[in-house]
Amino acid sequence: MKIKEEDIKFTQRSSVQEIEEGTSFSPKFNADGLLPCITIEHDTNQILMFSYLTEEALKKSISLKLAHYYSRSRNNIWLKGEVSGMKHFIEDIFIDDDQDSIIYVVRLNEPSKGGKKASCHVGYKSCFYRKIKVKEKSIELEFTEKEKSFNPDIIYDGIANPTKI
Amino acid sequence: MKIKEEDIKFTQRSSVQEIEEGTSFSPKFNADGLLPCITIEHDTNQILMFSYLTEEALKKSISLKLAHYYSRSRNNIWLKGEVSGMKHFIEDIFIDDDQDSIIYVVRLNEPSKGGKKASCHVGYKSCFYRKIKVKEKSIELEFTEKEKSFNPDIIYDGIANPTKI
Repeated sequence: MKIKEEDIKFTQRSSVQEIEEGTSFSPKFNADGLLPCITIEHDTNQILMFSYLTEEALKKSISLKLAHYYSRSRNNIWLKGEVSGMKHFIEDIFIDDDQDSIIYVVRLNEPSKGGKKASCHVGYKSCFYRKIKVKEKSIELEFTEKEKSFNPDIIYDGIANPTKI
Repeated sequence: MKIKEEDIKFTQRSSVQEIEEGTSFSPKFNADGLLPCITIEHDTNQILMFSYLTEEALKKSISLKLAHYYSRSRNNIWLKGEVSGMKHFIEDIFIDDDQDSIIYVVRLNEPSKGGKKASCHVGYKSCFYRKIKVKEKSIELEFTEKEKSFNPDIIYDGIANPTKI
């Protein structure tokens, strides 16, 4: 079923009972108007990225079934894959008990200029490509993805890296 | 390997290259001193909850291998399972490309007063027990967990519900 963006209405939050145990869709955006969003891959349950949504980004995503996210550094809504071709095709959207965080369940596709199915701008499939390794007196990161899925210098040629120090 | 809380040091963020492609652990806490954390179950990859960590909560979690989270409503660090017995035993911790969000990979146990292995205070295994169902002119929530894993009235007897309207 498809719904137009303008037909999507959120139910006003009226009781803890309805928020937790009901069927009304009442997402709670934070003081900055943002809703945390976790994106996972449909076939594997692998977590691909973590981001934030605005109300408009959420409504566009629901209506078009293509993930739109909010960039805090650029202060705009972006269609995932607009530059790279690596879109997030939404299969399902889950919401948590108190309705203040969201999961997008998506399918991936290949970057438009070549490479394997992936999501992360660094070149890996998932943004979570490292885990911590605890040593006796220190902590290091260890790579869990051994090679990149695509070459980010080709896919994002001329585009500024979104990562900030 | 075990590490003491006081021996855990974070590396100062010095370059995008090192943050994204290096092995230095440099988590970035937001302006409120918080780091978003996604908790997943080790055996299934299922997302259990979304929360925030402070630096102290993260260090305690790493050192004790038991998940500690930060409660924004109560303004304190809490050991998950302290009341209910439903602890999160940490197997792995992943961090994302720009090191501003974290995944705890955990094993669950049963509530101390009876029930199946679970995580969510409402009684379900995961906090994400509903997904959206798109209709032509509206959106409803649909339950994906059909029954509760435990009775929250027994497990949290006398404890205020953390959900806020």
